[in-house]
Amino acid sequence: MNYKMMGRFVGRILVVEGVFMVPALLISLFEREFASVRAFMWSMVIILAAAWLLMWLCRGSKNKFYAKEGLACVGISWLIISLLGCLPFCISGAIPHFIDAFFEIVSGFTTTGASILPEVESLPKGILYWRSFSHWLGGMGVLVFLLAISSVGGSDNGFTMHLLRAESPGPNVGKLVPRMKQTAGILYLLYIGLTIINVVFLLLGDMNLFEAVCTAFGTAGTGGFGVRNDSIAGYSPYIQNVCTVFMLLFGVNFSCYYMLLIRQFKAVFKDEELRLYLGIVAGSVLLIVLNLKGFYGSLGETIRHAAFQVASIVTTTGFATTDFDLWPGFSKMILLGLMVVGASAGSTGGGFKCGRLLLVIKSLLRSVRKVVHPQKVELVRMNGNPISEKVLQNINAYLAAYVIIMGVSCLLISIDGFSITTNISAVLACFNNIGPGFEMVGPTCNFSAYSAFSKLVLIIDMLAGRLEIFPILILFSRTTWRHR
Amino acid sequence: MNYKMMGRFVGRILVVEGVFMVPALLISLFEREFASVRAFMWSMVIILAAAWLLMWLCRGSKNKFYAKEGLACVGISWLIISLLGCLPFCISGAIPHFIDAFFEIVSGFTTTGASILPEVESLPKGILYWRSFSHWLGGMGVLVFLLAISSVGGSDNGFTMHLLRAESPGPNVGKLVPRMKQTAGILYLLYIGLTIINVVFLLLGDMNLFEAVCTAFGTAGTGGFGVRNDSIAGYSPYIQNVCTVFMLLFGVNFSCYYMLLIRQFKAVFKDEELRLYLGIVAGSVLLIVLNLKGFYGSLGETIRHAAFQVASIVTTTGFATTDFDLWPGFSKMILLGLMVVGASAGSTGGGFKCGRLLLVIKSLLRSVRKVVHPQKVELVRMNGNPISEKVLQNINAYLAAYVIIMGVSCLLISIDGFSITTNISAVLACFNNIGPGFEMVGPTCNFSAYSAFSKLVLIIDMLAGRLEIFPILILFSRTTWRHR
Repeated sequence: MNYKMMGRFVGRILVVEGVFMVPALLISLFEREFASVRAFMWSMVIILAAAWLLMWLCRGSKNKFYAKEGLACVGISWLIISLLGCLPFCISGAIPHFIDAFFEIVSGFTTTGASILPEVESLPKGILYWRSFSHWLGGMGVLVFLLAISSVGGSDNGFTMHLLRAESPGPNVGKLVPRMKQTAGILYLLYIGLTIINVVFLLLGDMNLFEAVCTAFGTAGTGGFGVRNDSIAGYSPYIQNVCTVFMLLFGVNFSCYYMLLIRQFKAVFKDEELRLYLGIVAGSVLLIVLNLKGFYGSLGETIRHAAFQVASIVTTTGFATTDFDLWPGFSKMILLGLMVVGASAGSTGGGFKCGRLLLVIKSLLRSVRKVVHPQKVELVRMNGNPISEKVLQNINAYLAAYVIIMGVSCLLISIDGFSITTNISAVLACFNNIGPGFEMVGPTCNFSAYSAFSKLVLIIDMLAGRLEIFPILILFSRTTWRHR
Repeated sequence: MNYKMMGRFVGRILVVEGVFMVPALLISLFEREFASVRAFMWSMVIILAAAWLLMWLCRGSKNKFYAKEGLACVGISWLIISLLGCLPFCISGAIPHFIDAFFEIVSGFTTTGASILPEVESLPKGILYWRSFSHWLGGMGVLVFLLAISSVGGSDNGFTMHLLRAESPGPNVGKLVPRMKQTAGILYLLYIGLTIINVVFLLLGDMNLFEAVCTAFGTAGTGGFGVRNDSIAGYSPYIQNVCTVFMLLFGVNFSCYYMLLIRQFKAVFKDEELRLYLGIVAGSVLLIVLNLKGFYGSLGETIRHAAFQVASIVTTTGFATTDFDLWPGFSKMILLGLMVVGASAGSTGGGFKCGRLLLVIKSLLRSVRKVVHPQKVELVRMNGNPISEKVLQNINAYLAAYVIIMGVSCLLISIDGFSITTNISAVLACFNNIGPGFEMVGPTCNFSAYSAFSKLVLIIDMLAGRLEIFPILILFSRTTWRHR
């Protein structure tokens, strides 16, 4: 392992984190929340000092990086920025227990949105801002990482490739344009642009600037932390619909937007993953509306709530306009299914991803056909392009890891003795980076009842889900730490 | 498709089914249950007439069979023997509704043990016997099929191979001895022998002959239909312990017994699947005993109930000595995990199978190591033998099919509006051929509350689970029915 280079890399990330605390510090100053001001200043001092120490200790070594270093680096970086990122919560006293603060910020950076806070309206504005901003940073994780490292060893080195593959929410991002740095820049701009448009639309609905910005951060990162106790339920139907639309937009593979920019409309229109994603959304809304007949006053209200909740769950955002835990069984099972499916690959959303699901189904259908015609050689295709057997193998390994981690996590947190539905949906909500689940972790509840041990399990789930499992898995593998 | 040969094959199976109704008929006569006598006679007439008609219509055609015909044949046969096997229930009036009777007999033949009957003690003896006997026949499915077809086209033809692969609960059975017919005979004898020993042990505990035979049928097939309303709870601790031991014995890969017969003790001792299976059982019992502290009167009683329930669930039998739905959350989650894992490959048990789980984990670990050392070529091994990539691919396809069928089934039966835990555990209990689940389908409840549509979904799940998915999947595939 090239520890020195890993150290330098983590140091750079910490500098970025420290600098990104400035807006929260300014808001705290402006709002005269002096406990928060002190908390952010101390946090920045600690973080920047740690960054400087790391970079000084790890100065001077070769720039060669292998896949395992890249993946391990990603896992460790997310751990360390979370460990230090929760300092403002602790120091300000907003979240007194360290494990709770750690849970909250991991939930932020992984864009999960699961909270241990029973209510948020009493929190200082600066703290609320940092909490929501962590979503936005997390959602931009790909790009931050890319830009942070592009100067480490040139833009097109193997490291960048490995990091990108580990970090990007999908297999396609890296193929947008041949040069990594340029890709990152484009994604950056798209992300910032969409966020700004989202803020503008929210402002048009008479939301105040602070709430609009925080809500847009939660939407863009598909995170789900809100600034009000009832999430989005208290806002006007217009605001709710704006959120629905933007959640869905942030759940689309970002390469589709790039295609639109370069006027490849036909490719976007024919994109199989996009079709599956939109089909799942439309189908789910339709079925839930039918199932909810008579549940709300009017059909319009039913459609609004159904569309919002479907968009919120499938994109793994986790906002809510209604307590969907009270919905009938069929609607709840649809939401449970959406929790697993998740958003598109190459978006800020989590979950198993529509693109992966499509490939799993296609490769399964091929297996069935192979039983019937054993001699026939058949390729699995996506948008007309053949998918290599290696990619299919990796996706199957991903499915296996997904199922096994789910099972083990459910078992571990069930030691606390809560119901089966609570435990399964808690793991689903964290592992797929959604936020709320059902029953005791439903949209009107929170994760505070779980023990510290269970919170740690769920923290690992959130990180594993966000980093597409493998960067976390290899941290636990003996082979990784063995000397060559 | 070679429809004629498929017809002849199904005809043969029906003859076997008709003949196997004789003992139930005799018991009904002996007990003077004349409604049942009439029901069995009519059923036999209909079944044998259908068999004769099929064989007459399908006489004379070439004996060539391909994989798809073999698999389709298995799926269709199980459907038809179930459709006709439920006639005694319907005609005698024991189960008035056809869909309920169909559910009950599919649950029998697939050795699931899920019931729609609120109580069984009022049923005629002959009907109870046929219900339990269906488990034993189902458990012997492999062998029945093998022997029935061995005369169709010679013993070592491709068809036998394909059927065996589809039908046998594991990948290893066929490799016991080179000649298929001989293999079948050995498994046959082992199965009958173990059943008889089981009956003897039950008789030693002062159980009457009828109950001993029916309980042994339920144990041998890992089915779970009992003859008392409280399953095994009312029997003595001795009887309960006998059941625990024999359930575990029938969950072992039968090739292990063959190895013992030919004195290959070392191979059995070192068998990785057996070790995993026993390890899972021991670990689960230990954890549940710890978790149940204070739940029962004494440690001995706790161990007895824990061991019985673990054995019953992991072997997918489904007997119960206590209402485990009242156990604390951790114990219930362990049982839920055991439901998925299931028994060993090559046993009469259902579920995903320990052997498959082992291979999924091994191939996942290899994928993780491959990230670290991309260049290294590594084989997945089982008991020292390398496993081909094709087998690994098939197991991954199996996992994908397993997860997708689970999800779709949960969604479909949730239309009835029951709770998430009820629905998930109902699908798990049927798909893995266990029987009882949690909450509304818990060990003291039954499946009667589900709608006819949900029952049909669960019937397909039972069949798909028992036939290792693919024979049922290809029945739904267009390719299968297309003309060459």
